[in-house]
Amino acid sequence: MQGSLAAWMAAKLLTVEAALEAWVTDASVPQLGWGAPTGLVQAMRYAVLDGGKRLRPLLVLAAYEAVAPAAPTQADVAALRAACAVELIHAYSLVHDDMPCMDNDVLRRGKPTVHVKFGEAGALLAGDALQALAFELLTPDDGSVPHAVQGRLCAVLSRAAGSTGMAGGQAIDLASVGLALTEPELRHMHQLKTGALLQASVMLGAVCGQASESVQLALAAYGQAIGLAFQVVDDVLDVTADSAALGKTAGKDADNDKPTYVSLLGLEASRQLARDLLVQAHSALRASGLAHTTALAGLANLVVQRSH
Amino acid sequence: MQGSLAAWMAAKLLTVEAALEAWVTDASVPQLGWGAPTGLVQAMRYAVLDGGKRLRPLLVLAAYEAVAPAAPTQADVAALRAACAVELIHAYSLVHDDMPCMDNDVLRRGKPTVHVKFGEAGALLAGDALQALAFELLTPDDGSVPHAVQGRLCAVLSRAAGSTGMAGGQAIDLASVGLALTEPELRHMHQLKTGALLQASVMLGAVCGQASESVQLALAAYGQAIGLAFQVVDDVLDVTADSAALGKTAGKDADNDKPTYVSLLGLEASRQLARDLLVQAHSALRASGLAHTTALAGLANLVVQRSH
Repeated sequence: MQGSLAAWMAAKLLTVEAALEAWVTDASVPQLGWGAPTGLVQAMRYAVLDGGKRLRPLLVLAAYEAVAPAAPTQADVAALRAACAVELIHAYSLVHDDMPCMDNDVLRRGKPTVHVKFGEAGALLAGDALQALAFELLTPDDGSVPHAVQGRLCAVLSRAAGSTGMAGGQAIDLASVGLALTEPELRHMHQLKTGALLQASVMLGAVCGQASESVQLALAAYGQAIGLAFQVVDDVLDVTADSAALGKTAGKDADNDKPTYVSLLGLEASRQLARDLLVQAHSALRASGLAHTTALAGLANLVVQRSH
Repeated sequence: MQGSLAAWMAAKLLTVEAALEAWVTDASVPQLGWGAPTGLVQAMRYAVLDGGKRLRPLLVLAAYEAVAPAAPTQADVAALRAACAVELIHAYSLVHDDMPCMDNDVLRRGKPTVHVKFGEAGALLAGDALQALAFELLTPDDGSVPHAVQGRLCAVLSRAAGSTGMAGGQAIDLASVGLALTEPELRHMHQLKTGALLQASVMLGAVCGQASESVQLALAAYGQAIGLAFQVVDDVLDVTADSAALGKTAGKDADNDKPTYVSLLGLEASRQLARDLLVQAHSALRASGLAHTTALAGLANLVVQRSH
């Protein structure tokens, strides 16, 4: 039904890019006549458009289609909005993460980082506004997404973004520089820092498709496995790939004395862990009982087998 | 019905402080066993607790009680959550605003600012996590707030916080240093920077109380008037009060060559504008047709007549 993964991805990426292009804009609030300032919107668009693998949006759409292969068009709108919202959270986290007081990185996706281009204050505000925009996207006032669905989507996304999710993971990451973490501690950090938002992507799709509780549990397990696998592979690529392939500075984590899977387990054991997590992800998909999991399965393979 | 304003405020402040104390915490996500890191939660609590006038929460609760004086207890929970959520957005904006790349302020409410106490990265992440927590508070999973109400609350708050609200106003503010703004331009900046969140506070209360469309319009006018009045008075106090009374550095805006109402209109005309806006706010309350507006009227007076 979904054809080859490559064709499915190409079609979905076109849709997602067009939606981001339309929604990350300076649209004013009609009844108030307030528009967003041009400079801020430029920084927000720079941070979001023309870059990124869009893995999180693809996970939202793949999960949504797996759950509701023949859902009404109306739910498609919710899924596309959720796909873009989670990408905005991801994008804002990169903007803030690159700032001098955090990772102090000047290169991202092969381009100068937002604070290099728009100044630190501009980057700070662009990130803040992108986080708010994520929740704006989930709560349209045009009747296209039922209010109750809006509430559930905001619940999932806010928890994945906040202190028990991404921001919490980044705080642990910061506090862990130079420390010898155990494997459970490292896993906990990554489950929050990267895993929570990847898992949330899957869950947002499931909410849009009105998945049953048992299906949600299976998809949560799938999301948790690929969330951790993503980070393990990231750690492997940080030492095996070069900056040009990554589009960011390679070897950064080791240079910064940050604990990684490679530093903890070694390169080969890290690769094996990624393969084990991939097996877990596929098992979870089988356990879901869903028929249309080609895209979810393909994305899991992609997470583990990617070269950048 | 609401007794004297002072008694009403004292009672509500106790409730709000207790709720913030309970909700800005390191509660883990039960089904996942993930907890927020201690250091991050400490910085978040430092930013939120034991300080602040809580004007925005009081506006939420006053609007809610005006609209639904005898609403069921269940809606009380929504209003209290909305009251705390808007305060978290306000608190996060102060944390980021005080950072070296923005206003570079070291004193806030008489205490060292968050980045002075927890470092810049700690302040950045605490602000980010507080914004997410605002939406977490609006979307409890315990059935205490209907999902449809959750969606509407997130819609109002996200727009007030984002690029067409607070973050947008701050971006205009940054870009305006040293510029000679016209009165409409200055008004536009403040409507976004401060007005949007104050107005949203009123609207969040109205949503919780299920206000009719005409009542919402009247309350929006009230909120817009006090939102602007608040900033005009802030500009007046910046040149007439001292740092001890303000709990922050006085004269900062003039020192930074930022356009203000006082620099544009002069001190006396600014005071008159504040009084005119107060009259507008009271007119809007009368136009609402609501019976129980004592608290809203009193808060409007307080905004204009405050000394810090």
